[in-house]
Amino acid sequence: MPEFKRLKLNLVRPVPSDYEISRNQTPKHITEVAKECGIEDAECEPYGAYKAKVKLDILDRLHSKKNGKYILVTGITPTPLGEGKSTTTVGLAQSLGSNFNKLAFANVRQPSMGPTFGVKGGAAGGGYSQVIPMDEFNMHITGDIHAVGMANNLLAAALDTRMFHENTQTDKALWKRLCPEKKDGSRDIPQGLFPRIRKLGLDSKPVSEWTDEEISKFVRLNIDPSTITWKRVVDCNDRFLRGITVGTAPTEKGQTRETGFDITVASEVMAIMALSNSLKDMRERLGKMVVASSTTGEPVTCEDLGCAGALTAIMKDAIKPNIMQTLEGTPVFVHAGPFANISIGASSILADKIALKLAGVPFNASPEEEREDSGYVITEAGFDFTMGGERFLNIKCRASGLTPDVIVIVATVRALKVHGGGAEVRAGAPLPFEYTSENVEMLREGCSNLAKHIQNARQYGADVIVAINRMSSDTDREHDVIKEISLAAGATDAIVSNHWEQGGEGAAALAQGVIRCAHREYPSQQGRPKEFNFLYETEGSSIEEKIEAIAKKMYGAAEVEFLPAAQEKIKEYTAQGFSNLPICIAKTQYSFSHDAKLKGVPSGYKFPIRDIKASIGAGYLYALAAEIQTIPGLATKCGFMNVEVNDDGEIEGLF
Amino acid sequence: MPEFKRLKLNLVRPVPSDYEISRNQTPKHITEVAKECGIEDAECEPYGAYKAKVKLDILDRLHSKKNGKYILVTGITPTPLGEGKSTTTVGLAQSLGSNFNKLAFANVRQPSMGPTFGVKGGAAGGGYSQVIPMDEFNMHITGDIHAVGMANNLLAAALDTRMFHENTQTDKALWKRLCPEKKDGSRDIPQGLFPRIRKLGLDSKPVSEWTDEEISKFVRLNIDPSTITWKRVVDCNDRFLRGITVGTAPTEKGQTRETGFDITVASEVMAIMALSNSLKDMRERLGKMVVASSTTGEPVTCEDLGCAGALTAIMKDAIKPNIMQTLEGTPVFVHAGPFANISIGASSILADKIALKLAGVPFNASPEEEREDSGYVITEAGFDFTMGGERFLNIKCRASGLTPDVIVIVATVRALKVHGGGAEVRAGAPLPFEYTSENVEMLREGCSNLAKHIQNARQYGADVIVAINRMSSDTDREHDVIKEISLAAGATDAIVSNHWEQGGEGAAALAQGVIRCAHREYPSQQGRPKEFNFLYETEGSSIEEKIEAIAKKMYGAAEVEFLPAAQEKIKEYTAQGFSNLPICIAKTQYSFSHDAKLKGVPSGYKFPIRDIKASIGAGYLYALAAEIQTIPGLATKCGFMNVEVNDDGEIEGLF
Repeated sequence: MPEFKRLKLNLVRPVPSDYEISRNQTPKHITEVAKECGIEDAECEPYGAYKAKVKLDILDRLHSKKNGKYILVTGITPTPLGEGKSTTTVGLAQSLGSNFNKLAFANVRQPSMGPTFGVKGGAAGGGYSQVIPMDEFNMHITGDIHAVGMANNLLAAALDTRMFHENTQTDKALWKRLCPEKKDGSRDIPQGLFPRIRKLGLDSKPVSEWTDEEISKFVRLNIDPSTITWKRVVDCNDRFLRGITVGTAPTEKGQTRETGFDITVASEVMAIMALSNSLKDMRERLGKMVVASSTTGEPVTCEDLGCAGALTAIMKDAIKPNIMQTLEGTPVFVHAGPFANISIGASSILADKIALKLAGVPFNASPEEEREDSGYVITEAGFDFTMGGERFLNIKCRASGLTPDVIVIVATVRALKVHGGGAEVRAGAPLPFEYTSENVEMLREGCSNLAKHIQNARQYGADVIVAINRMSSDTDREHDVIKEISLAAGATDAIVSNHWEQGGEGAAALAQGVIRCAHREYPSQQGRPKEFNFLYETEGSSIEEKIEAIAKKMYGAAEVEFLPAAQEKIKEYTAQGFSNLPICIAKTQYSFSHDAKLKGVPSGYKFPIRDIKASIGAGYLYALAAEIQTIPGLATKCGFMNVEVNDDGEIEGLF
Repeated sequence: MPEFKRLKLNLVRPVPSDYEISRNQTPKHITEVAKECGIEDAECEPYGAYKAKVKLDILDRLHSKKNGKYILVTGITPTPLGEGKSTTTVGLAQSLGSNFNKLAFANVRQPSMGPTFGVKGGAAGGGYSQVIPMDEFNMHITGDIHAVGMANNLLAAALDTRMFHENTQTDKALWKRLCPEKKDGSRDIPQGLFPRIRKLGLDSKPVSEWTDEEISKFVRLNIDPSTITWKRVVDCNDRFLRGITVGTAPTEKGQTRETGFDITVASEVMAIMALSNSLKDMRERLGKMVVASSTTGEPVTCEDLGCAGALTAIMKDAIKPNIMQTLEGTPVFVHAGPFANISIGASSILADKIALKLAGVPFNASPEEEREDSGYVITEAGFDFTMGGERFLNIKCRASGLTPDVIVIVATVRALKVHGGGAEVRAGAPLPFEYTSENVEMLREGCSNLAKHIQNARQYGADVIVAINRMSSDTDREHDVIKEISLAAGATDAIVSNHWEQGGEGAAALAQGVIRCAHREYPSQQGRPKEFNFLYETEGSSIEEKIEAIAKKMYGAAEVEFLPAAQEKIKEYTAQGFSNLPICIAKTQYSFSHDAKLKGVPSGYKFPIRDIKASIGAGYLYALAAEIQTIPGLATKCGFMNVEVNDDGEIEGLF
């Protein structure tokens, strides 16, 4: 394994724009980055000079290695400006690589292109803690989101067309067309329909002996149009597709239907990509996706439509994680980006697993060797700890079998002041006075929010490090208050980090703390065994019990109110056998509660569940505590209006 | 430049399935293929092991080279079974490379994934003349079609949302939001809106001096919804999106609109990708795309919406041609795939230009050196000569400045018998008797169709070689008839080819003929100067005159009837200044005429033009002589139902 070649930073003040910083750094060729991580040539598929896919069979080769250290980065309840989780993830990895010579991966989500051209611009960290090249990171990467969209939309087309054909043909005609008679009198049954034959128990007798009733059962899915949950997707902020009527052309003979589009990252296929442990696992999950119920109340799946093999074929390259690099040349896995608003908001299990093996030590390494040689995988969960972290632990970790060694909670003085009663903070508007000058009282008040997140993380038994993401107007006294309250709430340490302005160097103290914490070297860790507990059991507890566990133990609600639509769904999913799945709760990220206005640590409130939906293939139910917009819109002035390609073929104005 | 390494074929009888043949061949690594063509490492961006993009700056390096020989492959009026144009394109290239040691490129279109999962399965030649790996060829390749879809749909979202914002805001609010006031009182005008400022002549005075009327003119596009021609696209056979109502969600406040989706390859963005000569040219064409008219009848463009830079950014990698290889390891460019039904149905100009330079000789090469060293670029045009070839010559060649050295017209005994009065031939149905046994009379009668295509090609001054694509039931007497009639009609030669069954070896006689013809060595070419004439002039002739030229001189129509909708469009486009563009006529491919039932050489008929549409950025108008379905549907039994991914991660059942 060649030695890590650090890319030197040329730190400039004031910090230039993200894109300027990105463009002024010359990345290594991606094959060099891959080699430095221990990825063999045959396992690496470059896509251009700065991106590559890593083949899944690398897991077989590294099977016997012990995993590296698994570090989860989460945050406190944020402001709309964001508190720097991605920046911290990247900066921490840069420091571990550059300052401590550890093999350290930053594992992040692939951004959706919709918002890139909408309001927000790109996202890959920021300042001197970034994934580069930033334009490639924010555009297609290796096309995974496109593959997700194709797979999602093929299933949608198959669903609507199947209903059309069932509505316009007799059983006999459907049978003749679906399974045409061959010259020898036998039937040509498409491979993809065998699972349905088995599901119906029809594989026990020869096709020639099927009764008319059995043939009818096989050829008709009898989908109840009012139960369809599958929508089409597009990776664009196209608000006019939120609600659409399809089938209005004369060729569809009046079979119109109300439906809509989601943004591609909201597709269940994306969640499956994030939560699959192998190609085979993905194949099975795609088959299990439920798209509707039949008129008799049975779930209709992707497998029933004969689509699961084709969707797997479309996704067979997308499931391989993508490797890129940070500004300092440390490796980054960018893979999957399920929509945090309704899904887990975390990058893929396979990226984490591959990185953990690459960062790992031989199975027989001594504790001293492990301390010296172990690498680190810094993986990010969307939103705050109590939303993103909870989902990460109860859904992603349950699916992967992995548990984090350290949980980092990112906090800023600014956001904590909001929780202490500061004025509203809005993107684009100037910051009120309390945020640009010292205010220890307000900060101390707001630290209750941080303390609750720490206590929530400690409920899982995890070791917590607070990362104080430094801003220029912060004072030492303010940082001291955060440290004091963090330790009192159960954090192992609280450390100021200045990676945005200084890159890895600025995160060196944080990195040192993470290393010590991961190897349990803090005095407070001594004599306390390493543990990990899920918040709730999936088997044997009802849907209501699981939701209550999250709402009460994590969000601080006094009780949960299940509105009628939710009650009905609970009945339906329980009857369909889906009550043993973990739960993803969709709510605002701007409060512990369902009400974005409730800052600090709200308590004693009633938490409403309006509706429950299912992602059976991905393996969870999601409960809606708010109206969640699943496709954003474009503003009057949009990001795209500033984008141009210059004469050198470089993108300008994207960030 | 390393020597060409031929991949040996292991010919098996009967010929196995296309996918079996593809899978049994081990392709070279794509970087090896690229090196053998003279592509330098820095010019080649591999996407996995078997596909790569070639950077456009290769054209600067090879600028001074003379082009290689440019061979256009077209066909006679086909049957629904296809007569083997792609197979001939690939087989001919294999033979030139393998049997004659010439650098020979096959340049083909990227297939749409919609039909791949619909009825027809993949398409990359067939038998022993194929592009490999076939599964990769038929799936995403390097994501170009996805980029086209993204670009197309961002523009659609921008269009609908712009109308929404204009309908719900005052001039003042639009102005404030589009160009917010900065701290110093000046306006922050997005870069992408400058072209509109120049178009309106507002760049001559400072923004602060704009009158309210001028501000209104700038902020309001005043799009007339009834004139919108821009549709959304999806790369899927989703018939329920043919007609849709958008904007039915409450957030869109009742601003619904009737529209629909096309298949992605039907997007004007795809046609632009095929017809652009450089990144800059593409940028300009994208800006010129007309999406609607304003309420005062002026064209509203992508540039007016401030979208052209962003679309270019999305397309900046897609414009680089993709290189793959044939079964025998010869190079293939796969780039762009504009929908033949309404667009040019040819691969990209840039792929042809790069291939021609790579296949070329030094500028000062002697005729003898050129004869010895020149390579060949075999490029295919969709449909028959009289549709695809005509568009290739009058639209693509006009945009590129290139002209073909040889036109190959592919003919089969089977299709010629259809034109001689044989029974209807249908996919999936057994062939009637006349097609499986000798019938010289019927064949001779049908050769009129071939003769007309040859005569049509000769109108451009081009040299024509007829490729008789051999099938097992053909007889020598039948081949002799075709040869005799071809020569009489003006072809330079007519040569039997058996590449489907034998690969390059089977096309050796054809390759020999093409070499001789390209270097004008046939006795019939002596003393006849090389020439090339367009069928019509674009400047100074009216839209009607151009359409009449095509319908009368190519299709054999007696007169053209312009129906009312077409007449109106002619008026509109002429007023808007678009009458100088070349014309693409959309009609059935199964007859010279607009009526698929008229076989042979129909004449004396009235050719109807129902409507005319515009692809201003791509640079042509298209006239509809038929109702053209721009998004296919799925049948009861679909291709996707047979697709599976096996335990080795290989796709099964796609072909």
